[in-house]
Amino acid sequence: MKQYKGYLIDLDGTMYKGTELIAEARDFVIALKEKGIPYLFVTNNSTKRPAQVAEKLESFGIPTTEDQVFTTSQATANYLHDRKPNGTVYVIGAEGIRHALTEKGFTIQDEDTDFVVVGLDQEITYEKLAKACLNVRNGAFFVSTNGDIALPTERGLLPGNGSITSVVSVSTQTQPVFIGKPESIIMEQALEVIGTPKEDTLMVGDYYDTDILAGMKAGLDTLLVHTGVTTKELLKGYDKQPTYAVDSLKEWMDKI
Amino acid sequence: MKQYKGYLIDLDGTMYKGTELIAEARDFVIALKEKGIPYLFVTNNSTKRPAQVAEKLESFGIPTTEDQVFTTSQATANYLHDRKPNGTVYVIGAEGIRHALTEKGFTIQDEDTDFVVVGLDQEITYEKLAKACLNVRNGAFFVSTNGDIALPTERGLLPGNGSITSVVSVSTQTQPVFIGKPESIIMEQALEVIGTPKEDTLMVGDYYDTDILAGMKAGLDTLLVHTGVTTKELLKGYDKQPTYAVDSLKEWMDKI
Repeated sequence: MKQYKGYLIDLDGTMYKGTELIAEARDFVIALKEKGIPYLFVTNNSTKRPAQVAEKLESFGIPTTEDQVFTTSQATANYLHDRKPNGTVYVIGAEGIRHALTEKGFTIQDEDTDFVVVGLDQEITYEKLAKACLNVRNGAFFVSTNGDIALPTERGLLPGNGSITSVVSVSTQTQPVFIGKPESIIMEQALEVIGTPKEDTLMVGDYYDTDILAGMKAGLDTLLVHTGVTTKELLKGYDKQPTYAVDSLKEWMDKI
Repeated sequence: MKQYKGYLIDLDGTMYKGTELIAEARDFVIALKEKGIPYLFVTNNSTKRPAQVAEKLESFGIPTTEDQVFTTSQATANYLHDRKPNGTVYVIGAEGIRHALTEKGFTIQDEDTDFVVVGLDQEITYEKLAKACLNVRNGAFFVSTNGDIALPTERGLLPGNGSITSVVSVSTQTQPVFIGKPESIIMEQALEVIGTPKEDTLMVGDYYDTDILAGMKAGLDTLLVHTGVTTKELLKGYDKQPTYAVDSLKEWMDKI
């Protein structure tokens, strides 16, 4: 069995479910740390800063520094920086994406912007959507932090950022560039951050359509863990299988 | 030239532009009234009651009774009534659609509904979209008053109801039944209301993609007037042409 030199790891459904820790996942990360193997959490959650995510993981007993968290907000800010450093942007989204963009040198404003970025915003209003549409129609480059159609909660599946993004894409008939998993954009940046060679890095996650596809598209080996969305039964419906699939990360402990 | 016995007429772009009357359109309707030819205004605007629409038209000097206005909210309420009279419905939308549904005997509630209806709501919130998604995922039949992707305003093109509807359709992966133009559902009901034979009724409007297509799909002759969205230039791009096209309804006065 191949020994991987680095791990990219999903959060929700892989490390925890909402507010509930997955204990075997914590033990898995502790083992990585003890063996000195680099790991980076890669998340489509655009609403929180890396420090806030690290704090949540630490509160579960999962050893995490701020630098071990890579969010789609950071990936979005980097992507925009490559296109036009210090540009102007109209943002729909919460603190995480706003912080990432301003930290990277972007100016957030309402009109005549170079970019429109849509990230999850549970305080969405018609006026925010209107401003996003007007800027896109005026030529702003349109980016969405992630295309997740649904957000799993204790109430059920609520609208995800991909569905909110569709207001702007349907109204303006302009497709955005999506940054988060399953796109390669976030994965290529995450590989740079972790610094291990692609062929020696494993992508770990619970959701085929985002985590596993992201790994495959980026040319990584993949490990699907059945603690979240994609059950064994659902996995049978996919043509291309992940490199590995386990019921729990406990099964992976002797392969680290 | 054929003499039509009834006219179905669009509003925005045909009778007025926002708050501005199109004087030739007023004269055209006055002529219809004087000659005793039935006419019915057919609108995708779900936000106002027929009485409110009639009042606006009267304020422009366009002779209109409440009964001469047929909104997509009325068409939606009739459609739901045919599927399940006195059912329960979760509604995103303004006064017009709420009034039409309660008047028709429906009970508006938040959970466990038979139907979800989405109409234009400029006070949209994430919570409203969440409730719509949860009801659709729980099996509620999903209906949208109209699929207009954009709303023309003095600020530019803002998100139309079709784009707001897409949040629910993308998130739940469930397509709604659309009621308004260009769908036949509203047109068939409008024909019943006006009461003139299909072959003797003319559909008049400014927008090919809604008004003219609606007429064509319903098997009516169509008259495109270039006072709104579809210019002469744009019209050249369509394969199937309307029965007639004029720059202004003034040109139609001697054909009534």
